[in-house]
Amino acid sequence: MEQVTTDQALSREQLHELAQQLRVDSVRAAAAAGSGHPTSSMSAADLMAVLLAKHLRYDFSTPDSPANDHLVFSKGHASPLLYGMYKMAGAIDDEELLTFREFGSRLQGHPTPEIPWVDVATGSLGQGLPISVGIALAGKRLEHAGLHVWVLCGDSELAEGSMWEAFEQAGHSGLDNLIAIVDVNRLGQRGPTMHEWDTSSLAARAAACDWDVQEIDGHDLEAIDAAYAQAVDADRPAVIFARTKKGSGVAAVEDQPDQHGKPLEDPEAAVEELGGERSLRVEVAKPPEAPSYEVSRAEVERPSYELGEKVATRGAYGDALAWIGSLDERVVALDGEVGNSTYAERFAAKHPDRFFEMYIAEQQMVAAAVGMQTRGWKPFASSFGAFLSRAYDFIRMAAISDADLKLCGSHVGVSIGPDGPSQMALEDIAAFRAVLDSVVLYPSDANQAVELVDAMRLHRGFSYMRTTREKTPVIYEPGEAFEIGGSRTLRSGEEDAVTLIGAGITLHECLTAADELASKGITTRVIDLYSVKPVDAATLIAAADETDALVTVEDHWAEGGIGETVAGVLARAGSGTPLVSLAVSERPGSGPPEALLAAAGIDAAHIVAAVEETV
Amino acid sequence: MEQVTTDQALSREQLHELAQQLRVDSVRAAAAAGSGHPTSSMSAADLMAVLLAKHLRYDFSTPDSPANDHLVFSKGHASPLLYGMYKMAGAIDDEELLTFREFGSRLQGHPTPEIPWVDVATGSLGQGLPISVGIALAGKRLEHAGLHVWVLCGDSELAEGSMWEAFEQAGHSGLDNLIAIVDVNRLGQRGPTMHEWDTSSLAARAAACDWDVQEIDGHDLEAIDAAYAQAVDADRPAVIFARTKKGSGVAAVEDQPDQHGKPLEDPEAAVEELGGERSLRVEVAKPPEAPSYEVSRAEVERPSYELGEKVATRGAYGDALAWIGSLDERVVALDGEVGNSTYAERFAAKHPDRFFEMYIAEQQMVAAAVGMQTRGWKPFASSFGAFLSRAYDFIRMAAISDADLKLCGSHVGVSIGPDGPSQMALEDIAAFRAVLDSVVLYPSDANQAVELVDAMRLHRGFSYMRTTREKTPVIYEPGEAFEIGGSRTLRSGEEDAVTLIGAGITLHECLTAADELASKGITTRVIDLYSVKPVDAATLIAAADETDALVTVEDHWAEGGIGETVAGVLARAGSGTPLVSLAVSERPGSGPPEALLAAAGIDAAHIVAAVEETV
Repeated sequence: MEQVTTDQALSREQLHELAQQLRVDSVRAAAAAGSGHPTSSMSAADLMAVLLAKHLRYDFSTPDSPANDHLVFSKGHASPLLYGMYKMAGAIDDEELLTFREFGSRLQGHPTPEIPWVDVATGSLGQGLPISVGIALAGKRLEHAGLHVWVLCGDSELAEGSMWEAFEQAGHSGLDNLIAIVDVNRLGQRGPTMHEWDTSSLAARAAACDWDVQEIDGHDLEAIDAAYAQAVDADRPAVIFARTKKGSGVAAVEDQPDQHGKPLEDPEAAVEELGGERSLRVEVAKPPEAPSYEVSRAEVERPSYELGEKVATRGAYGDALAWIGSLDERVVALDGEVGNSTYAERFAAKHPDRFFEMYIAEQQMVAAAVGMQTRGWKPFASSFGAFLSRAYDFIRMAAISDADLKLCGSHVGVSIGPDGPSQMALEDIAAFRAVLDSVVLYPSDANQAVELVDAMRLHRGFSYMRTTREKTPVIYEPGEAFEIGGSRTLRSGEEDAVTLIGAGITLHECLTAADELASKGITTRVIDLYSVKPVDAATLIAAADETDALVTVEDHWAEGGIGETVAGVLARAGSGTPLVSLAVSERPGSGPPEALLAAAGIDAAHIVAAVEETV
Repeated sequence: MEQVTTDQALSREQLHELAQQLRVDSVRAAAAAGSGHPTSSMSAADLMAVLLAKHLRYDFSTPDSPANDHLVFSKGHASPLLYGMYKMAGAIDDEELLTFREFGSRLQGHPTPEIPWVDVATGSLGQGLPISVGIALAGKRLEHAGLHVWVLCGDSELAEGSMWEAFEQAGHSGLDNLIAIVDVNRLGQRGPTMHEWDTSSLAARAAACDWDVQEIDGHDLEAIDAAYAQAVDADRPAVIFARTKKGSGVAAVEDQPDQHGKPLEDPEAAVEELGGERSLRVEVAKPPEAPSYEVSRAEVERPSYELGEKVATRGAYGDALAWIGSLDERVVALDGEVGNSTYAERFAAKHPDRFFEMYIAEQQMVAAAVGMQTRGWKPFASSFGAFLSRAYDFIRMAAISDADLKLCGSHVGVSIGPDGPSQMALEDIAAFRAVLDSVVLYPSDANQAVELVDAMRLHRGFSYMRTTREKTPVIYEPGEAFEIGGSRTLRSGEEDAVTLIGAGITLHECLTAADELASKGITTRVIDLYSVKPVDAATLIAAADETDALVTVEDHWAEGGIGETVAGVLARAGSGTPLVSLAVSERPGSGPPEALLAAAGIDAAHIVAAVEETV
């Protein structure tokens, strides 16, 4: 195998050969797979050849080193190009390259972190750049590292608003370590992009966001080299709009319509046209050592609340976040411009250097969190639960990335009261349960919330906490242990007729109902199902065995929430114990919390009535 | 009550009085409610006074008239201002104004279409402008109407990428009937916005999107008037960045921090400072008559497919869409730049004037659909099911608007094969079931898909169809009737041991398994649960009564999908028949569809094994 070392003396011809190899390998990989996106890879081959050979600083033998640059393919469908670069860097061999898209191969249709040099899964367009903003923020603001984050973007994905959230945030934060390379190949999946090769509108917008902006011919190797040099030296984030031809190098597909996302019809002829197979190898430059750094760490005592005190769990979340920020310097917090409602501001007050204001841009907030966790930070991002739905695609993709992402959604359910339905999260349990390997927590009191925030810190993966706007009584002792996957049985006796199951605000309605039912001679078991996923199936099955009916109560739609979680447990167990599910089923309006709980049929009075109807 | 008529001769002093009344009423409404956003209303009072008195053309007695202008409060939290305008226009009285946020009042915390003059619910920031793009597109491209769509935006919400999707799409479409008024009051919820009063970055970006851009003092009544005149005359969409002071007019709160989202501390003093209560009434100008228009309507035959033919339901969706476009000229289609995958392109080929390419901007796509349905169009918007998750917040809000929105998500589940998990919708059933009053359909063959697409056309409300990438055999006769809420029992006998329940691609796995089990002497009932919501509970309960176990099989996560839907039915019925739920439970990779179905444990072989284990 020929070896090319990275030095400034690389000739134009040598760089061209590297680019041609990337094109050839893209064609070959897609041909072997029988699917894939070779033409979207070929357009960016020159861009990536110059990057790999002359500008990237990356030690493929230590992908977790904090010194490495990052390379993110925001246009994840150009995976054949990325995998061709790995081959060129000697990280994989040609045999593995040709396993592209095979069952069991780590070289999937779109990149995932199953590959050690991939930070995050991409393939849902518009995500790579905002995630890279998070990587760059961590690198610059927290670690003062000298690395660069290189992001290959498509021109089609610039239609996604999330890309412009990234432009805005990066410009605002002065991320001079972020370099976006836009492969402007003019053709989307079904036809021309909105702007085709006229990059003027995009360039003007990026400049207005305070980026260093260049527009170049993306097949001019010297222009690319010079553009990268300028980008590295820029005192702000840099974007290079590189006009390219999709399928460049092969006449049959070059700049042709209807050539998206499929192998070339005649790959052998294409390889020949490109000058044949090559096995050039680039010795990618190693990065300089990462600097050491320190983060400040204010001392914060573990919050605790007195039994009977009325405290909103959102407040306890904020207190707990400040506390674990003191316990663990890897904890960072991100806010969607509602930190005085979620109480993330309490973290900001104690650990300002680890607090990130992402403004009202929930996609960018979640993306930045995903980016930060690639560098070992433990990000807690919070907004109203309803508005986290804005970032659902990012959360879905974060799970594919196996990201260590912690989210908190406040202001859930009808019990928020007068602000009305636009502000009420009523689908968050359903949405976040349906995320791979997710944890969904819904604390019922402040001390429990504190314990569970710390459990989220210690849990690696995606976890979500749902907090309540209203103040509810403290019912657990400070320091009482609560585990992910557990539950707490608050009332229990041998004569229990019915089991009441609630969490968050409805647990308190269950307790009130239990008292009233007891006064009528009906004893009930009461379960706090604070861990909705994973769920404590054993306790639920025992309750189904030992009582005559189960009643779930939730401030959430009926679908996918606590009721169906319990139903799933019962049905899989073949339990014949009937289940009554009280949940929100009609469009709520504005009003006092208690009026809305009553109107939704999830307050104590409705629980009492449901039990009386059952027994 | 004093009356002000709208003519060009209104003095500056008269306009000031109107604005002061809007401020006073904002203060009073919030004071009466004990909550709300008076300061966010006061900043825009001058802007709205001039609009109502001099530029809006709206007949409040006929809110559904197609001739009316539209007024959308993208900053929905300024609802006291909007309601004050309604009072000033004589649409509501003062008594009703003071019911703001009361339980049962239509004057909710954020506007909803429960109020006849409100097109869509707002309150999740960043949605009003993209929805207005849809209204303007319908008005201009379909109806050639002379109306204007006026949108009051906040400056904070310009951080949402969806706003920039709207700027881009409106500029690209040359929407000269769209006017965005940005109330740049410098202060967000928790502190200053990113750009405060420096509107230069925002203005440059809007100009780059091909908008007519003005930057004015938002408290200068003459400047406002002149800006509106220019905006109305502009040959492109117009935006006015109006620098204002939050809480303007009351020294205690004007341009002060920590005054967001709460009533004034001393409302009486504020009202006095503002010159006291007023009851001025504006006679809002009536619009000219709406022009008549025609849409083209190509003849398209009802698609039908032969039994046994292999057809992807996504293809049938495209064929059916073209057909119903011929049947019903109110049907329009929107694409997220994947029309050659969802097959929405088949509609475009037949009805190009009713086809809207929204590029890769799913939020804008769904928002535009929501906007179009406000004018009586029946929008079908489609993308990969996975990417509809990008628009989840818009769908949530569409349900609050009771919008007539039809979505189709293609490429669902692991069975898409080599493209890998980023492209696989595995949470769409869960997410869309958890939308108020939603319909979730999952056709199992092409003829059924055709029938259900037409059922979606006839259904008013939010409906979602999930289509399959792979070709599956046609099993139903052309023209066979399928209803929303129904199911189809394909195999049934008195000796059935187990019921198999599938939909889409897994129904075919169930049928294969049933054949194999039959050959082993185990007879099974097979149910096609094509309507996942509403679900045919009676058929499921009968199956639970008549067979020994139920097995659900779905190409979706276990949470919130078909399995839990069935579990909910069984548990509520108190059925003790055990349920086995086969669903995707691990992170899939790339590979052939059959390998991925097997790896996920949802193919025929796994169904056979599950049944054998059960009986």
